[in-house]
Amino acid sequence: MADEVKLHGVTGSPFVCRAVIALNLKGIKYEFVAEDLSNKSADLLKYNPVYKKVPVLIHNGDPISESLVIVEYIDEVWKGVPILPQDAYEKAQARFWAKVIDDKCLPAVFKAVSSHGEEQAVAEAHEALQFLENELKVKGIKFFGGDNINLVDIAATFVAFWIGAAEEALGIEVLSKHKFPKLTEWSDNYVNCQAMKESLPPRDNLVAFFNKRFGKA
Amino acid sequence: MADEVKLHGVTGSPFVCRAVIALNLKGIKYEFVAEDLSNKSADLLKYNPVYKKVPVLIHNGDPISESLVIVEYIDEVWKGVPILPQDAYEKAQARFWAKVIDDKCLPAVFKAVSSHGEEQAVAEAHEALQFLENELKVKGIKFFGGDNINLVDIAATFVAFWIGAAEEALGIEVLSKHKFPKLTEWSDNYVNCQAMKESLPPRDNLVAFFNKRFGKA
Repeated sequence: MADEVKLHGVTGSPFVCRAVIALNLKGIKYEFVAEDLSNKSADLLKYNPVYKKVPVLIHNGDPISESLVIVEYIDEVWKGVPILPQDAYEKAQARFWAKVIDDKCLPAVFKAVSSHGEEQAVAEAHEALQFLENELKVKGIKFFGGDNINLVDIAATFVAFWIGAAEEALGIEVLSKHKFPKLTEWSDNYVNCQAMKESLPPRDNLVAFFNKRFGKA
Repeated sequence: MADEVKLHGVTGSPFVCRAVIALNLKGIKYEFVAEDLSNKSADLLKYNPVYKKVPVLIHNGDPISESLVIVEYIDEVWKGVPILPQDAYEKAQARFWAKVIDDKCLPAVFKAVSSHGEEQAVAEAHEALQFLENELKVKGIKFFGGDNINLVDIAATFVAFWIGAAEEALGIEVLSKHKFPKLTEWSDNYVNCQAMKESLPPRDNLVAFFNKRFGKA
C-alpha cells in the first residue's frame, strides 16, 4: 500500500514551511489540507487537541504535531537525503541549536517585528541572532548542516525568509549585512537552494501579510 | 579508553534530575560536578554560553546542554534499557509529550507554586496537567512509556516529585488524588521505581527549598 501523507497547514506559516521543506527534501508526495485558522477544522482539533495548531502531518491516518517533531519523524521514516546528522554528538548539537532558535531567536524576532522595530526589541533580537552568527563564523560553514542543510537550517527558515519580508513591509532593519555578515550570506545561499525554491511561500504574500498585521495603517 | 562522563548540575533541579535518571537507567558511571548558580564556574559558561544553565553533560570532553537533548543523547550512545521507543511514530509521540510538559505543564505549575496557590494559577496548572491525566487514562497505561518508563516519564519527573514537596512546604494543593486519579497513581508508581530511588534528591531538602523560596516567611 502506498503511503498516504497529508499536511494540515496554512501557507505563510514558518512552522508549516519546516514540514513542507522536509517533505520536499525527501521527495514525498503529499496532500496539503489548507486550514482556516479563524475557523479550524474538526480534523485539526481532533488531531492536535493540545495545541490546536498547524502543522499536523497525517501519515497513514496517524497524526504528528509540532514542526520539529514532524521534521524528525519525516527524517526517520523516509530515508534518502538526511536531515539530521548520523553521529550522536552532532545530532545532539543540531537538536540543541533548533531549540535555541525556537526558545530565543523566534520570540525575540517576533517582538522586534511586532513592535515595529522598537529599539530595545531590536537589540534583543540582535543578541539572540548573534548566537547563530557566531555558530556559522566559528565553524566556518556554509549551512548550519555544513555543506548541506540540516535540521538547524530548516528551523531557522524564518530568519532567512520571513525577516526580510517583514523588513520590507515595515521599513525596519533587523538583520543587516553589516552586523550579520555570515547569517545574511547563509540566508542568500539557503533561500536559493532548489529545495527552498519549491518550498517557500510567495514573498509578496508575506510582505502583504506583515503590512496588514503589523503595518502603520 | 573508558568513557569519561561528567555532569555539571545542582542537586534539587528537576532538569538536572532528568539527566541523572537517564545515566542511572543506563548504569553509566559519571562524575557529578556541583555548580553554584550564584557563582557559575568558568567551565559551565564555556560549555553552555547560550543558556549558561545546568545540566551540561560532558562526554569525553564534548559538552551537551538542555536536559531533553542530553537524555536523547544518552539513549543513543549507550544501549541497554531503552529510553525512547524504537518505533518512529511512538518516538514522535514521546517527543511531542515531552514538549507539552516543557511548554505547557512546567510554566503553569511553576506559576501555581510561585503564586502560593493563587486560584487562577492553580486552575491553569490543572488545565495543563489534565492533558497528562487524559493521556494515561485513554491509553490505560501504568507509565507514559507503557509498562516501563520512557522519555515522557523522565520529562514529567517534576510532576511526580517536585509538586508534592511544594504542596507540603506551602500548604497548597495542585495535584489532588480526587482530580487526577491516574496522574497521582502514576506519581506513586514512578517515584517508587528502583531507578528513581537512586536518582531523586532528598525530599526534605526540596521541601526546605520551597519553604525558603516561596513560603510566607
